[in-house]
Amino acid sequence: METVDILIEDGDLLTMCGDGVGYIGKGAVAIAGNSIAAVGRTDELRKTCRAKRVIDAKGMAVLPGFIDGHLHTVIALLRGVGQDAPSWHIGMDPFFSNMTIEAVEAGAQISAIEAIRAGTTTFCDIGPAMPLVLPFYERVGIRACVCSLISQVPPVESTIRDGELLPFDEDIGRQRLQENIELIESWNGKAKGRISVMLGPQAADYCSVELFGEIYALAEKHNLRVHMHLAQDEREMRQVELRYGKRPVQFLQDLGFLSDRLIVAHLIYCTDDEVREVAESGAAMAFCPSSLLICDGILPPADVFLEAGGRVCLGTDETSSNNGVNLFSEMKIAALAMKMKRRDPAFFPAWQALRLVTIDGARALGLDDIIGSLEAGKRADIILIDLQRPSLAPVLRDPVRNLVPNLVLSARGDEVVLSMVDGRVIYENGKIITIDEKESLEFIGRAAREVNEGAAEEVMRRKTPQYRFTVDGKY
Amino acid sequence: METVDILIEDGDLLTMCGDGVGYIGKGAVAIAGNSIAAVGRTDELRKTCRAKRVIDAKGMAVLPGFIDGHLHTVIALLRGVGQDAPSWHIGMDPFFSNMTIEAVEAGAQISAIEAIRAGTTTFCDIGPAMPLVLPFYERVGIRACVCSLISQVPPVESTIRDGELLPFDEDIGRQRLQENIELIESWNGKAKGRISVMLGPQAADYCSVELFGEIYALAEKHNLRVHMHLAQDEREMRQVELRYGKRPVQFLQDLGFLSDRLIVAHLIYCTDDEVREVAESGAAMAFCPSSLLICDGILPPADVFLEAGGRVCLGTDETSSNNGVNLFSEMKIAALAMKMKRRDPAFFPAWQALRLVTIDGARALGLDDIIGSLEAGKRADIILIDLQRPSLAPVLRDPVRNLVPNLVLSARGDEVVLSMVDGRVIYENGKIITIDEKESLEFIGRAAREVNEGAAEEVMRRKTPQYRFTVDGKY
Repeated sequence: METVDILIEDGDLLTMCGDGVGYIGKGAVAIAGNSIAAVGRTDELRKTCRAKRVIDAKGMAVLPGFIDGHLHTVIALLRGVGQDAPSWHIGMDPFFSNMTIEAVEAGAQISAIEAIRAGTTTFCDIGPAMPLVLPFYERVGIRACVCSLISQVPPVESTIRDGELLPFDEDIGRQRLQENIELIESWNGKAKGRISVMLGPQAADYCSVELFGEIYALAEKHNLRVHMHLAQDEREMRQVELRYGKRPVQFLQDLGFLSDRLIVAHLIYCTDDEVREVAESGAAMAFCPSSLLICDGILPPADVFLEAGGRVCLGTDETSSNNGVNLFSEMKIAALAMKMKRRDPAFFPAWQALRLVTIDGARALGLDDIIGSLEAGKRADIILIDLQRPSLAPVLRDPVRNLVPNLVLSARGDEVVLSMVDGRVIYENGKIITIDEKESLEFIGRAAREVNEGAAEEVMRRKTPQYRFTVDGKY
Repeated sequence: METVDILIEDGDLLTMCGDGVGYIGKGAVAIAGNSIAAVGRTDELRKTCRAKRVIDAKGMAVLPGFIDGHLHTVIALLRGVGQDAPSWHIGMDPFFSNMTIEAVEAGAQISAIEAIRAGTTTFCDIGPAMPLVLPFYERVGIRACVCSLISQVPPVESTIRDGELLPFDEDIGRQRLQENIELIESWNGKAKGRISVMLGPQAADYCSVELFGEIYALAEKHNLRVHMHLAQDEREMRQVELRYGKRPVQFLQDLGFLSDRLIVAHLIYCTDDEVREVAESGAAMAFCPSSLLICDGILPPADVFLEAGGRVCLGTDETSSNNGVNLFSEMKIAALAMKMKRRDPAFFPAWQALRLVTIDGARALGLDDIIGSLEAGKRADIILIDLQRPSLAPVLRDPVRNLVPNLVLSARGDEVVLSMVDGRVIYENGKIITIDEKESLEFIGRAAREVNEGAAEEVMRRKTPQYRFTVDGKY
């Protein structure tokens, strides 16, 4: 009889193994240390395991924790000041220029707290200030897969006129790359392996060929992923055309960047042929439907990418554009928007959405050796979802099982009742138990007020769309 | 000094008065009996009102309760067995033919419970069995605006071949009309005015010209609204063309049905010109984006309807197709799908979505004399939303107020902490206080199991898409 730390018993397991959802009824998961020791039927595991703690999961779904495959927490604090405008930047810019260190920290805190409360256990956070927020991620207990944003464009972007090239500053590029290198040295593999680091060139129009070359060499040397934006806005398309006489996908292809080491976000200005080219190269796609719909009114072409056999993860992008980090909401929006684009209610069924935030998301990020499914040997990142809640009732199991559609199309997020990462319970009984949430929320409120006070004059001077809405009584 | 029953103090009021959201900071609402006695700044109301109960709404948004403008609770129990298929009917039919009285009651119960927990206070329920569910609505304390589904088509629909007319059975039509008449007589104005009744012809292909005539005469006689489906599926388009040589909108126009007495749902097979014709007639539209995207992959043309000056309410349609009754989720999906359709991030801003579930929804349903805004004289249907929750933090008020975008794009529903209808608190501290929710959920579970057992054989025999998903390990 093996002694394990935790035995989760009698749940409806969606292990996400195999090519579907890997359902096991009356299932159990045994956890030893930070890993899953065994997965199977409860009656069988009871015979082989003795547990220090037993968690009764009767009436609950048991899943791998959700993976948010692409987000920037750095400006998460600025929720609700950028949407409903022709360009998201108009409302955001006055706040950008008044960000503080506290605001960056608070952005990561509000994102992590909101996300944990909706079943997320892994954050793929892409930002310029990871050393500021990683101590919090370590403390709150979430898994994080992060990189710096590497760019060599000085902060003059908005003054560049049509037909002009963005200036490249080698020193800035070197400094940003150095930050990512230091991030690798200080954090990769830290927090008992919960933190991993990627390389993060911002986009095809933000780095020179030489800088891309250095990034690629580093990625190969350290065997790291590269996570970047691709074909995300019209400026990028124009700049790359102007500088190199080609489109961004061709540019990356010629650089030798399109490979299974690469994760690219958005692709909204790609042709379908380009989308297929990227997918077939082995590169993965980060699909952020809500954020792109809110900021651009465009659904990223994840349908084309998936049909070309590409690997896709789902991302919330950022609280300031999404306007949140709830992967349940994101799954529903992904599913409905895909059906709408294809005018086909059978397209992108619920199980596919669920795979994007679990095993397929893990594969896209290159983390599937450790997370994404409930399998012996993987890290114990597990969530329990109360199926008795009014938003998920009634539960049918036979002959049609309605768990998966209801988790994807009905759940709001608060049905998650327990969350563990690396075998450590971080959320239970409605509370994140690793931090003082109240204190954190007070800090978030203070930091937000400070940025807001700093930005106020500029907001009023520029009369941002959201300011007009406020003055006009629409907000 | 006036004595009132309840004074809600120090909240962020979104009164929904005027042409925006009618914000009042540090606002108060005084409630006397079932009505709003006064709305204003807290310091002012404190001078004029003495309250038996004071509710401290500091850090909370105070809004009119949400109005679900179109739903069928009759089959709500069948959540998660119809989606992801070319036709929603394939998965649902085996269950339809095994519905029980308990299942109908349970459908209303699960819908009301889930909806109340997400801020809904008014249900526009359209179904064949209102007398079965109205006692529950009366007891739980929700406001309901209901009708019977009037059809004279016998249950042979699925055996009708292309090119054949659906048979009309006068006796069936008369019986269904009689049910709606009895509903009016027994329930219109009951529960102290909380229940109101409309007339509910199912669709243009389900009633004869004569039956439509009788319905219209009755509506005029009792001054009632008529609520029906229009251009909701291809069969309706074919049937009306076949029978009358015209399209459904023209058919209703020629009948004299298009007027401000009419509320029509869906319109997904209308041309834009037809949508404008309906809007300009004064008829209102019930807009159910999630349900139609899930069942048909089509966004109803609410954008065109609104631009033509039409009145629109938002509806969840049904739990078995949506798959839920959460108007927060519905607002976000409405906003994102509209932006996607128009490829315009500025289109359909958050405040417009919020108006659809409050004042504009009330106008569409003809209920704006009693609900939809916080105004003295209107019924006290009010919700309190905790803005301190991680999903809504941080709150900014000046110079940009982020409440409205965050309520529409970030809230999950569980931030609603108090709900009252007609001045009576029905939900507080996470509990619906008018019923025993646990008992209700047990009843819902039993009723679901019974229908499921009845349908099981047919589900397996027909091998519904959802059954295949289950067997194949995808559900």
